[in-house]
Amino acid sequence: MNEAVKKTYNTEIISVGTEILLGHITNTDARDVSEMLSQIGINVRYHTVVGDNPERLAQCARIAKERADIIITTGGLGPTCDDLTKQILCQTFGVPLVENKAEADALYDYIKGGRQITPNNFVQALIPEGGTVFHNNWGTAPGCAFEKDGKVVVMVPGPPVECDPMFRQCVIPYLKKLSDEQIVSHSVRIFGIGESAVDDIFAEEMNAMINPSMAPYAKECDCLLQVTAKARSEEEAEEMMAPVIRHVKEVLGDYVYGQDVECLEEAVLPLLRERGLTFAAAESCTGGEIAKRITDIPGASAVFVGGAVTYTDGVKARLLGVDPALIAEKGAVSHEVAAAMAERVRAITGADIGIGVTGLAGPDGDGVHEVGTVFISMAVEGETYVRDVFMGVHRTRSFIRRMAGNHAFDMIRRWINGMDVVPDNIFSPSRPDLF
Amino acid sequence: MNEAVKKTYNTEIISVGTEILLGHITNTDARDVSEMLSQIGINVRYHTVVGDNPERLAQCARIAKERADIIITTGGLGPTCDDLTKQILCQTFGVPLVENKAEADALYDYIKGGRQITPNNFVQALIPEGGTVFHNNWGTAPGCAFEKDGKVVVMVPGPPVECDPMFRQCVIPYLKKLSDEQIVSHSVRIFGIGESAVDDIFAEEMNAMINPSMAPYAKECDCLLQVTAKARSEEEAEEMMAPVIRHVKEVLGDYVYGQDVECLEEAVLPLLRERGLTFAAAESCTGGEIAKRITDIPGASAVFVGGAVTYTDGVKARLLGVDPALIAEKGAVSHEVAAAMAERVRAITGADIGIGVTGLAGPDGDGVHEVGTVFISMAVEGETYVRDVFMGVHRTRSFIRRMAGNHAFDMIRRWINGMDVVPDNIFSPSRPDLF
Repeated sequence: MNEAVKKTYNTEIISVGTEILLGHITNTDARDVSEMLSQIGINVRYHTVVGDNPERLAQCARIAKERADIIITTGGLGPTCDDLTKQILCQTFGVPLVENKAEADALYDYIKGGRQITPNNFVQALIPEGGTVFHNNWGTAPGCAFEKDGKVVVMVPGPPVECDPMFRQCVIPYLKKLSDEQIVSHSVRIFGIGESAVDDIFAEEMNAMINPSMAPYAKECDCLLQVTAKARSEEEAEEMMAPVIRHVKEVLGDYVYGQDVECLEEAVLPLLRERGLTFAAAESCTGGEIAKRITDIPGASAVFVGGAVTYTDGVKARLLGVDPALIAEKGAVSHEVAAAMAERVRAITGADIGIGVTGLAGPDGDGVHEVGTVFISMAVEGETYVRDVFMGVHRTRSFIRRMAGNHAFDMIRRWINGMDVVPDNIFSPSRPDLF
Repeated sequence: MNEAVKKTYNTEIISVGTEILLGHITNTDARDVSEMLSQIGINVRYHTVVGDNPERLAQCARIAKERADIIITTGGLGPTCDDLTKQILCQTFGVPLVENKAEADALYDYIKGGRQITPNNFVQALIPEGGTVFHNNWGTAPGCAFEKDGKVVVMVPGPPVECDPMFRQCVIPYLKKLSDEQIVSHSVRIFGIGESAVDDIFAEEMNAMINPSMAPYAKECDCLLQVTAKARSEEEAEEMMAPVIRHVKEVLGDYVYGQDVECLEEAVLPLLRERGLTFAAAESCTGGEIAKRITDIPGASAVFVGGAVTYTDGVKARLLGVDPALIAEKGAVSHEVAAAMAERVRAITGADIGIGVTGLAGPDGDGVHEVGTVFISMAVEGETYVRDVFMGVHRTRSFIRRMAGNHAFDMIRRWINGMDVVPDNIFSPSRPDLF
């Protein structure tokens, strides 16, 4: 690969599919591919979406050839006559398509298995001459890549369940090989202070850093610091990052909930499993958010026994046995009722940890508290903790519910790790702007 | 607007934002805008995403000017110096920016309210000369539109909570006004037969239809028929569609769960509310899916009292009082335990309707049933219904859980409407391919 490509890696992603232009599906492929490329230091400059139309696709391919060093296409590799990506890209670069024996054999096996095929099926076994084949372990159409005129063209299938694993497992190693450099990246996930606060803490250091580099990113209800290093080998890159990551974790302390995980529940599940602990949840305003999120993860049954969704005062009493007099005295949305919910769901289910959530997710308030007020509690043997949280008045229902869930998982994490479960400095109620 | 635009409406959506190219966010704006445009018969030909970079944005604007009749931009209208969409698009078309008094006054009010502003804030009050302003009721940066050289340029803010309502409420009426024709569209939502079956039923009719037109679309766990008409007025379009929609509903009968709604729970909530009915749910494999989905909708507390997530046999007994002997005899994943869960959650909560779900969402099975086996039950006064469902072995955990939730909402809907609650012909277990 020439020097220019190595240095800039200007990349365009072309997603092919009329259903994206009709708004029937969201172009998550471009997002997934962009994230993976940015993690190895490749700059994505453009996303383009075009329909299954040969003239318009050819025009987009010509524009990309002009302005990008690496062109990634997603979609249009299937067996129907709509699927033209390989033909058009190869035409644009003057590269002939030739049959790949291994892929043709795989197709014969597929047919022998009794599957239906279309006459066009064998087009799938055609690969750009001199190119690289990415066998599709998640579907039928193989991906492929070729280099021509100092440019790199990579083509992967459109369905996200094929595109994502093929890109991760085949294309990323292929692109890394094109360069002498290895680019490795880790994310440090943070809950309890906002992205702007993290930015303030590390701004000077980050400005002075070149390799490894570091950047903060906001997610919906938490944030992360991404650390990236370029080196001659992966080991070297890891060695360069290790002291930086250690330093970040020291400075942020208990706010760091994990490395290279996607969400708090993903960090909490193994913590519980390793210690053989279980939890149950009693949810009012979150209405099943916590249960749904933990059970979205395969293997949740090892750590989650279940719980109650108590959307009315009556059900809080009847299903959980929360004292109606307490609800009458303190109100359903209160510190005390949150505590009672956690204690009761723990007692009834026999789980090690009980979680309780009550609050106002909006749009309507209760005349006492503002929307965005949530009490999140955790009961363990001999102790009940409650966080009184106010998220600010401008939050959406979905944000308030998700954030309340994050607090619950964060309390479990902090308790297991022997940290302060209700710290003063966590998203201070007087500073909702920190969220 | 010239004839060419009226006839073809070739449209390009340019989304501006480096965070999309880094893969930090998904370009849902392009999806939302595309869907709204396709509903009024405007053909989206290209999506482009470009970063906050003036040269690259200008290049994309020139390409769009060349190949599209309508250019929609999302993002880059904010107050920071990164936000350049208006300046670049106006440059490309040679249209000067002038201050809009109403928007400038609105900004002064905003500042008087004590909000922080940046020096660049007043750039937001600049509007293309002779253009149309879309006041932003959902944020601060106004949207705008202008016509030049037979082309239409529309610019809306990037945050989806601003882009979506502004496009729906301001831009769609603006675009409709540009044409003598009114394009109106309705969706008929269907649960219980798959998109390909619907396609088979109406294929001949659809091929023969021009205006109004009709097309089936698959969603994750249900499908829809979209009916669209073009006419001189909205009333005329509605009159043209009425017999078609009536016919579709007659043919599909009980499979139709709603018109112009997004999901089953959205159709069920008003049905329950109108009749003053409440429901509760006892969820095993869905793990809170049903509770979360109904409580995602504001106003759920009028119809949903809560329920239990019973992820272990012990909790089924302890929280719901399901007989452990029944679980031992029939198995936790069984017709009988599903029925008992629905009956018990109804009895304990006092709701009018009790829902029970138990099954295998995978990835691991239980050695008895295959993954994809789910029993969904509904208990009402004097009767308990159970659907024994097998969704096929290739389904994801998330599909199985969502589909089980759809069955639950569908049972409520059918019971309220006096329809057969457990019809033989619904997604026949022997035909998982129909799903």
